[in-house]
Amino acid sequence: MRIGALEAGGTKMVVAIGNGQGEILERLSIPTKTPETTMPELVDYFKSRQIDALGIGCFGPLDLNRESSTYGYITSTPKLPWRNFNIVGTFRDMLKVPVGFDTDVNASAIGEATWGITKDVNNSIYITIGTGVGVGVIIDGKPLHGMLHPEAGHILLARHPKDTFKGCCPYHDNCMEGLAAGPAIEARYGKKAYELTDNEEVWELEGFYIAQALVNYILTLSPQRIVLGGGVMHQEQLMPIIHREVLRMLNGYINTEELRAMEDYIVFPKLNDNQGIMGCIKLAIDEINNTIRRGKRRIDLNE
Amino acid sequence: MRIGALEAGGTKMVVAIGNGQGEILERLSIPTKTPETTMPELVDYFKSRQIDALGIGCFGPLDLNRESSTYGYITSTPKLPWRNFNIVGTFRDMLKVPVGFDTDVNASAIGEATWGITKDVNNSIYITIGTGVGVGVIIDGKPLHGMLHPEAGHILLARHPKDTFKGCCPYHDNCMEGLAAGPAIEARYGKKAYELTDNEEVWELEGFYIAQALVNYILTLSPQRIVLGGGVMHQEQLMPIIHREVLRMLNGYINTEELRAMEDYIVFPKLNDNQGIMGCIKLAIDEINNTIRRGKRRIDLNE
Repeated sequence: MRIGALEAGGTKMVVAIGNGQGEILERLSIPTKTPETTMPELVDYFKSRQIDALGIGCFGPLDLNRESSTYGYITSTPKLPWRNFNIVGTFRDMLKVPVGFDTDVNASAIGEATWGITKDVNNSIYITIGTGVGVGVIIDGKPLHGMLHPEAGHILLARHPKDTFKGCCPYHDNCMEGLAAGPAIEARYGKKAYELTDNEEVWELEGFYIAQALVNYILTLSPQRIVLGGGVMHQEQLMPIIHREVLRMLNGYINTEELRAMEDYIVFPKLNDNQGIMGCIKLAIDEINNTIRRGKRRIDLNE
Repeated sequence: MRIGALEAGGTKMVVAIGNGQGEILERLSIPTKTPETTMPELVDYFKSRQIDALGIGCFGPLDLNRESSTYGYITSTPKLPWRNFNIVGTFRDMLKVPVGFDTDVNASAIGEATWGITKDVNNSIYITIGTGVGVGVIIDGKPLHGMLHPEAGHILLARHPKDTFKGCCPYHDNCMEGLAAGPAIEARYGKKAYELTDNEEVWELEGFYIAQALVNYILTLSPQRIVLGGGVMHQEQLMPIIHREVLRMLNGYINTEELRAMEDYIVFPKLNDNQGIMGCIKLAIDEINNTIRRGKRRIDLNE
């Protein structure tokens, strides 16, 4: 079983070949240019590896509705050459294999839920805080889509009373991403996050916003565990601030075993930045099973 | 098929007998006192009607985890006589029938999703805005539980810049319930909601908070339709304000067919204040099917 995996990002495409156990046999990355330039490179790569299926975790927004005539398209992205591009259909036509598809952050959530830190729970969320904020949601073991897919990096938050920064989301004055993603930190202080490591005030404010978003996710989605990844979370001093602030803001309103064991509730990822590509492998395996659902056999993860 | 239904509230217990089509054959309500006084009355009622199953939609928080040793308990409620009361176990022991169980607002969500305004979609939310704010969530046709169950009435919101009211939630300075439930309106203006019908400023502010909460639910849960019920929503002049403010706050960031048809996306309930008790009937039917899942037959809703 040779599985192709593609983490499609706005600046780079990470491709990999894996097996049914989620092991990565090889990987490389190429820059993201236009579909005309980049797609043939990707197709050639996967063709030469003779893959049995492909899984894609993609920057969005995406059409994930299988009933829709534009299922498998990247839709209203600001990356103009990719707007309304049929990425699933193109790969399916060129490679003639099943193609699984979800958002990049849902792929990370699936990776951790299949082989990582959330594999023992059915309901979890994976949040990446980097140049943007993405939230992947797993409910009853499956990624949440609904009308579209969660875009919970843009939930509206109350400002910290001392924060005069105007936010840097072009759509919203006071959303999570605009107040707390990497570019917000840089714009607020005129330095990159890694240059501010020793500035406690920076991380107290950042922890305030992250915790406020998590409180809202906890009260809305009731996850059994929350994973925090992405470049901003490389500032590991944030984690104890987040733990403290989440409990302070919830203020005892809900009280569960999980919240009492806060260090095991809000956690770092376990898969060393492979959660996304491993999630893509799982998406490919699920798609094979979808394709042959009425057929003979299911794919054994140990094959 | 005679189904017992119980909407258990902090001030009254609504009981009903229905059939497998969700039709209510009789109903009455009794005041909620202590378990010692109220439970025997309820048991007598259902015993005398010879029901085949009971469904309960209950004030919370509740333990809905079937693996837990306290499954079916009302847990940390401020209604002290009911704290840690095993309501499911008591009915099961006394009535010897299957007992379905969920939160009151999940029952309303289930009622509308089974027989009402959301029966054509798989992912919906039902929000009741009255003395408190409750949010029931249906994902892939099933109520969301997770770690506990959603308590999304308490999500934290940004205050309106002109609102100086301090909020009236004992737990949170700036949560939805504390800023926008009925008691907040009354405390802010010194009058009941129905006495303020003609005061536009009241409903602009109320619409601002409701819309802000809905934006966060939309971005987090991606529902295909949202139902707004409860006493505050009897002020129907709120609905167009909410429609306008949701679109203003989303500001085009997500763009779907559903959002373009806003009047069909955020809607009033359809079941005339019977959605809760009808949802309890569905909970009972589901519990019969759970009980005999490995057995002979499924319950036909038309039986």
